[in-house]
Amino acid sequence: MKTQLLLVAVLVSCLGIFGLARPGREDPLASWGDGPSKAAITAFVEKVTKEGSPEFVKPEERIAVFDNDGTLWAEQPMYFQLAFALERIKAMAPSHPEWKDKEPFKSVLAGDLKTALGGGEKAILELVMATHAGMTTEEFAGVVKEWAATARHPKFKRRYTECIYQPMAELLGYLRANGFKTFIVSGGGIEFMRPWVEKAYGIPPEQVVGSSGKTKFEMKDGKPVLVKLPEIGSIDDGPGKPVNINLHIGRRPVMAFGNSDGDLQMLQWTTAGPGPRFAMIVHHTDAEREWAYDRQSHIGKLDRALDEAGTKGWTVVDMKREWKRVFAFEK
Amino acid sequence: MKTQLLLVAVLVSCLGIFGLARPGREDPLASWGDGPSKAAITAFVEKVTKEGSPEFVKPEERIAVFDNDGTLWAEQPMYFQLAFALERIKAMAPSHPEWKDKEPFKSVLAGDLKTALGGGEKAILELVMATHAGMTTEEFAGVVKEWAATARHPKFKRRYTECIYQPMAELLGYLRANGFKTFIVSGGGIEFMRPWVEKAYGIPPEQVVGSSGKTKFEMKDGKPVLVKLPEIGSIDDGPGKPVNINLHIGRRPVMAFGNSDGDLQMLQWTTAGPGPRFAMIVHHTDAEREWAYDRQSHIGKLDRALDEAGTKGWTVVDMKREWKRVFAFEK
Repeated sequence: MKTQLLLVAVLVSCLGIFGLARPGREDPLASWGDGPSKAAITAFVEKVTKEGSPEFVKPEERIAVFDNDGTLWAEQPMYFQLAFALERIKAMAPSHPEWKDKEPFKSVLAGDLKTALGGGEKAILELVMATHAGMTTEEFAGVVKEWAATARHPKFKRRYTECIYQPMAELLGYLRANGFKTFIVSGGGIEFMRPWVEKAYGIPPEQVVGSSGKTKFEMKDGKPVLVKLPEIGSIDDGPGKPVNINLHIGRRPVMAFGNSDGDLQMLQWTTAGPGPRFAMIVHHTDAEREWAYDRQSHIGKLDRALDEAGTKGWTVVDMKREWKRVFAFEK
Repeated sequence: MKTQLLLVAVLVSCLGIFGLARPGREDPLASWGDGPSKAAITAFVEKVTKEGSPEFVKPEERIAVFDNDGTLWAEQPMYFQLAFALERIKAMAPSHPEWKDKEPFKSVLAGDLKTALGGGEKAILELVMATHAGMTTEEFAGVVKEWAATARHPKFKRRYTECIYQPMAELLGYLRANGFKTFIVSGGGIEFMRPWVEKAYGIPPEQVVGSSGKTKFEMKDGKPVLVKLPEIGSIDDGPGKPVNINLHIGRRPVMAFGNSDGDLQMLQWTTAGPGPRFAMIVHHTDAEREWAYDRQSHIGKLDRALDEAGTKGWTVVDMKREWKRVFAFEK
């Protein structure tokens, strides 16, 4: 009897060592309330991962794509990458005396954001080019890391990388635990995201797809470097998302998650494939804990995609009702 | 004593169940002779995977990149993708009566390859555009799969996907067993490779980097499709390789494998990183079992990279001496 008990103990400890102990009792989606979205997610994952099920999806086909701004982390009061660019303009100003008399830099330096961004897309592009090019890829990654470690969100007074949605972080982990490979497919810059996403989301750089500038290979003091050029390579937004999913991933995703009209084509592309497909939209309905915006918003406008979600039966998360917690830093 | 023996037995069987039994007796690199290249590869892998070693490389950083043509599969008497394009021209000719009078199509259809390719890069580009564009990505993948399943190599009379180098296939498996993520970084077309590489090399589509044409998202009969345009997106050769490694992978590789000057910048980029790095060149020295070519060859020219391998101490595989078997179909 004693021997048997010992054997059981050894076996259990073996199982423990190899991480095969019985499933934990903790809910992997603990920050999700028991609403329809959580039920839809878990029902879908259960059916596609159940061997022998007619809707079983082979592990190598389990690709899940996530928009970033407004889907994995917040995007108000302005895209965080724009906040990064504005901060860089200020930091770089001493070596650019000409900016004092040149828009949009002049207004940025005077703290007049409205005038600065009044120049529209052209002005934003100028700000991005001035701050995202003219250095090597490694230098840029260093600048982003420094920013991520120090800059604070104006409303939450937290690092930007703390302004990620806790329910979505749990969802990423839940999908990976079920054999999904999780990718970011964002309008944000691919090189702006890579330095911090691995730690924030557990997503490695090779699973990040985003907008990009061109780079040039050259020798600098006998060492090869990649220099970031002030030229757009790809805008990963709207129809650019399926194009880049095809270029970078080369498989049609099984699940796609977005929050705005910029994600519409990605959701269409994902759900148009054969077999089981899942599309979800994060609807920003919580003016108290976060922000409430959709059809009229300049940032993260959600209009056509919200209509299409209705007609196609995509899952729409009511952030206010369905998320027990928005950010990890909430009490 | 009996209890102790039992405990040991249980532990050993536990270890067996979880795949941690002693290393198998089969050599994972059985097609490699005991030459300097095999020794260099295994010594490198052992030191970077040994925990606590000063040269230990974390699993997530273990990125290995492989050129395809001439490195993983053969590239003579012409790049296999060009053979594919020529075959397509013939298959498509009935719906293109204008080709009868138009070069380079006219000569291809007349079987006069020398004249057809005499038009140089422009002619080749025309052949590629005519055969690789004007259809959806899914239609193209279907055409490639059909070709891979049926077309035969002119010398070996085998399917092209059988003309892969057995020692390199073993190397891919060996690296993956040691926690490396293996990527293809090829001058070949990204969409030409993806339909067959997963089966041939165990490399999933999302780990394939290559040259690409542009695509356009559009609705066709109410369904979203990606149409392949006759426009070059990226040429993944020479300095284009580090550029695309940065774009697609976003990490500097730890190991890189190539065979020609088109791989030089990839090898430079890989080895210029800090910490342990490994670069290898497959030198085609076997006129009997395969082909012998290097500095003077039009296909897979190996000249500058061979010099640099000498000065930098990169591993150069002497195919004739170091590979016991070149292809799996050899007796």
